[in-house]
Amino acid sequence: MMRTHTCGELRSSDIGKDVTIAGWIRFSRDHGGVLFFDVADTYGITQAVYDPESITADGYAELGDILKTFSRESVIKVVGTVRNRVPGTEDCRNNTGEVEVLIKTAELLNSSKPLPFEVAEQKGSMLPSEDLRLKYRYLDLRRHVMAENLRFRHSVVTSLRTALNSRGFTEIETPMLVRSTPEGARDFIVPSRTSPGDFYALPQSPQMYKQMLMVGGMDRYFQLARCFRDEDSRSDRQPEFTQIDMEMSFVDMSDIQETIEFMLSEMWKNVYGEELKTPFPRVSFYDAMHKYGTDAPDIRYGLELHDVTEIVRNANYEIFKRILSKNGKVECVNVKAEYTKGGSEEGGVGRNEVDRLIEWAKSQGMGGLTWMRMTPEGLQSNIVKYFSDDVKDALVAEMDAKDGDLLLYLAGSEIAALKAGGELRRKLAADLGLLEGKPHQFVWLVDCPLFQKDSATGQIEAFHHMFVCPENMDLSGEITDIRGLSYDLVLDGSEIGSGSMRCHDPEVQHRILEMIGMSEEKIQDEFGFFIEALSFGAPPHGGIALGVDRLISLLLGCESIRDVIAFPKNKKFQSLVDGAPASVEEEKLSELQLLSLAGEDFDDSDFEE
Amino acid sequence: MMRTHTCGELRSSDIGKDVTIAGWIRFSRDHGGVLFFDVADTYGITQAVYDPESITADGYAELGDILKTFSRESVIKVVGTVRNRVPGTEDCRNNTGEVEVLIKTAELLNSSKPLPFEVAEQKGSMLPSEDLRLKYRYLDLRRHVMAENLRFRHSVVTSLRTALNSRGFTEIETPMLVRSTPEGARDFIVPSRTSPGDFYALPQSPQMYKQMLMVGGMDRYFQLARCFRDEDSRSDRQPEFTQIDMEMSFVDMSDIQETIEFMLSEMWKNVYGEELKTPFPRVSFYDAMHKYGTDAPDIRYGLELHDVTEIVRNANYEIFKRILSKNGKVECVNVKAEYTKGGSEEGGVGRNEVDRLIEWAKSQGMGGLTWMRMTPEGLQSNIVKYFSDDVKDALVAEMDAKDGDLLLYLAGSEIAALKAGGELRRKLAADLGLLEGKPHQFVWLVDCPLFQKDSATGQIEAFHHMFVCPENMDLSGEITDIRGLSYDLVLDGSEIGSGSMRCHDPEVQHRILEMIGMSEEKIQDEFGFFIEALSFGAPPHGGIALGVDRLISLLLGCESIRDVIAFPKNKKFQSLVDGAPASVEEEKLSELQLLSLAGEDFDDSDFEE
Repeated sequence: MMRTHTCGELRSSDIGKDVTIAGWIRFSRDHGGVLFFDVADTYGITQAVYDPESITADGYAELGDILKTFSRESVIKVVGTVRNRVPGTEDCRNNTGEVEVLIKTAELLNSSKPLPFEVAEQKGSMLPSEDLRLKYRYLDLRRHVMAENLRFRHSVVTSLRTALNSRGFTEIETPMLVRSTPEGARDFIVPSRTSPGDFYALPQSPQMYKQMLMVGGMDRYFQLARCFRDEDSRSDRQPEFTQIDMEMSFVDMSDIQETIEFMLSEMWKNVYGEELKTPFPRVSFYDAMHKYGTDAPDIRYGLELHDVTEIVRNANYEIFKRILSKNGKVECVNVKAEYTKGGSEEGGVGRNEVDRLIEWAKSQGMGGLTWMRMTPEGLQSNIVKYFSDDVKDALVAEMDAKDGDLLLYLAGSEIAALKAGGELRRKLAADLGLLEGKPHQFVWLVDCPLFQKDSATGQIEAFHHMFVCPENMDLSGEITDIRGLSYDLVLDGSEIGSGSMRCHDPEVQHRILEMIGMSEEKIQDEFGFFIEALSFGAPPHGGIALGVDRLISLLLGCESIRDVIAFPKNKKFQSLVDGAPASVEEEKLSELQLLSLAGEDFDDSDFEE
Repeated sequence: MMRTHTCGELRSSDIGKDVTIAGWIRFSRDHGGVLFFDVADTYGITQAVYDPESITADGYAELGDILKTFSRESVIKVVGTVRNRVPGTEDCRNNTGEVEVLIKTAELLNSSKPLPFEVAEQKGSMLPSEDLRLKYRYLDLRRHVMAENLRFRHSVVTSLRTALNSRGFTEIETPMLVRSTPEGARDFIVPSRTSPGDFYALPQSPQMYKQMLMVGGMDRYFQLARCFRDEDSRSDRQPEFTQIDMEMSFVDMSDIQETIEFMLSEMWKNVYGEELKTPFPRVSFYDAMHKYGTDAPDIRYGLELHDVTEIVRNANYEIFKRILSKNGKVECVNVKAEYTKGGSEEGGVGRNEVDRLIEWAKSQGMGGLTWMRMTPEGLQSNIVKYFSDDVKDALVAEMDAKDGDLLLYLAGSEIAALKAGGELRRKLAADLGLLEGKPHQFVWLVDCPLFQKDSATGQIEAFHHMFVCPENMDLSGEITDIRGLSYDLVLDGSEIGSGSMRCHDPEVQHRILEMIGMSEEKIQDEFGFFIEALSFGAPPHGGIALGVDRLISLLLGCESIRDVIAFPKNKKFQSLVDGAPASVEEEKLSELQLLSLAGEDFDDSDFEE
């Protein structure tokens, strides 16, 4: 028997029991010949004591000599008796803190080399660099918070599965070795040995497979699906990630939204023991962009953007005039006085803070940022002289400005002003601590366009992806006015999922591919099999996929999704724990009839026959 | 509202209700102007009737004209009233067979082209070729049996997960883009764009990652893990497959076996409503080979092999003498008379059948097969004259031969005779119908060697894999005598899982890698990171992985694992539904700094600068 109890189990009700525990020596100290060991496993920490004052049996002295040689993080098995700790030495932060195990015998199960960093969590201890944590990920996982992250993830995923099971969904595994199809991002490809010169791709999502499952009548599908995107590494992306992917037939948008709300609220009950308020608020794409300056709005605080372009059009302020003459816009945010209580003497966002905001706005590519403060005498600032009383009154009315409020103005092209406004909201909310204690908030983003124009090339592309069903199956009219039946799920200002009704009509699907500029040859080559599938009686269907890594990291408040993934890649897409990617033997490449050109000066002699 | 009920829901208790159903027109017929539609979805089939004798409303005649144009497998939505079927026309094989829906209005949701094969299951209908089924997999999935296979798989997997959850296991996702490491089979590799010339591999199993999770203290891990092996396609393999993979710390073999028995018996209760008898029988590797002629014994029937070499050594039979002179063995199987009741006049395995077995034995690479039949006068056959009474008596005693029993002898090298004996058992069991009505039987294969010698090269290799812990951590003595702490799980004569205690001592692990012939450089390069992980206090640990595809297909009695996979590859590892693998654009390869040499005569001009 390796253990009778884990290191998190013993309580004062166990006093007097003979027990066996096993774990890592997280900490040890010699207190005048009495040896104390913190024996840790993932469930907790139990104090084991070698106490020659309590035990005088033959060989006990020798045991003490041996125990002293055990290094930290070595694995030990202890047989002993549970007893009370000496009064005054209890550790009330620890569930096992009232008791200790008096060591009778102990055995070293494995020793540990000195660690590259500290595993025990101690007050004020700094985390090692992330590269070191990733290289020795298994040691990082011994830290309680990391293990808890993975267990939290498991309990969330389990709850999501249980909820979908209760609604009659079938989890179905779709293939990982698929056909390469452009779906927005770059594919990872896998050379085929049995068909040299051909390649599989790793799926960016199971999109076409789940749609074919609907054509096949599977009705309600879900999957915890691993997906792969070889994107240029942005802030917090992984080349492989997990989504909870689902699809339903014979439904409309609201059925799918309700299902997701049900799934998440069931999870909420299980994980937090609380009700999640449903239905989630719906925000249209237009409102999201115009009120929140983003397609992933955080509605947990105010600071909404107001388009004051028409109000300030007649002001005599040169900067605005110049921007408005180029069809620009002026967006205004009201930093309410109550947001800034307890801040600087001027009410939280004082002159210095405003100056810093101006610098920040420049760093965002804006010309700057203009401000006015509401006082009992009306709006005040260094530029109010350029604004007539009428304009000022209209601004006060539009922004509902009260005494102490600070109005911030961003001016520029519409998209630049809105985007900067969105960033300004985020920054202010963080700086002013507006999110402290705020519960999580899900929002549906709806009424998105089906297409968008690439700003650089003018090329029409799918706003989400090419499988979204147009509203009323109607593709007529101005192309950028066509709406798609889509719904993104946003949590706390981050998009965590994207869903839509799908195009189940093969002709409409074909037309969409044409509209995004695909040649007939390309359509047939890459999507021919899929359009054919739709032609054999595809039911109306739709679905959604939620990013699990992102969802979990938002719920846990982690800085990075890497903290909720057991073995993540770093920003260069390297796995530091095993050294992947790595070189492979020439033989392997030649079996695949591939030649690597990387890192070599080209040498013709390699190709002599 | 797309539907108020699925096509499997309506019962006579619903008579009189106004309902909406939607599904595929699986079948339709015109019965004198009354139109009958079998409206099918994955839940069932409901009869919908267009009946101008019951409804005479305006426009109903036109509806009939429209309905007549709907092709089979088109998707239809029907609004109508539930009513009794005409007495005598009920369909008692169908849950909805007592009722029908009188169509008030109907809408075509999508039309279907003519199908490449029949979806409706009809008596005596032949399945189309598997290639056609795989190309139109979504249509194949409309067949009830295929959809049921996937749902059965889901319910088994759900039960396995639930059982492990109840034991405190955490499901943890391990990476799919890993380091290429030789683990028996050939890796699929994935070129890295960010590190040109380097490659990820797709995991053959999460082996080292789950072991690192144990080093990290995660204690009880499991995962439904997708694994990849680029093996030369044998009978029923897929390049990607799923295993339920688990690992535990601070346990011994019996703890893991008990956990698996618990998991499977919990599943059994949920899926079959029956108790599964545990513990499963243990069969040693030695007994498996010597009694059953295989390392995956099917113990549901007798026909055990008996080594009668010593008994027949003194017989005067030339063939045996020749084989024994070369250190060969003679194996005997008793085909008991009761196995063959109702067979031919000679008791089931008559002269013709024996002749066919002789031919079969030759096809297995044996010289032939020798037989004797037990009669009231003793053993009889064309060769008994070469056997003395003593020898015959000894054979009768060893084989417990009773009147009517048939003794079959295979002679050859030990391994050939045992292997052919194993195949003979399988063949006889199938031919004689010995498995009919037999419940499924799990068996643990234990006491396997740690190493084996490759018969061709004489090279020492791992019997299972290089991470198995040797018995007593002892690597001394004759190398092929060392046993590993391993346990394979066998179901009905097929291996479905392989487990072991792992080597948690870094030095023993290193020594094993040396013993299988790896150079120090190779060890450091490919396993250095892993051995280092073991050196930071790896706990004693072990685990197992069960092949989910194989488990499900055995439970369902499917001929191929392809029948329990939504989108399988064919034997050439092609995905016929989407055409993977396929060529990729040159641009893609050049981004990866790869050059494909496949299918092209080499042309130097491509490389001009």
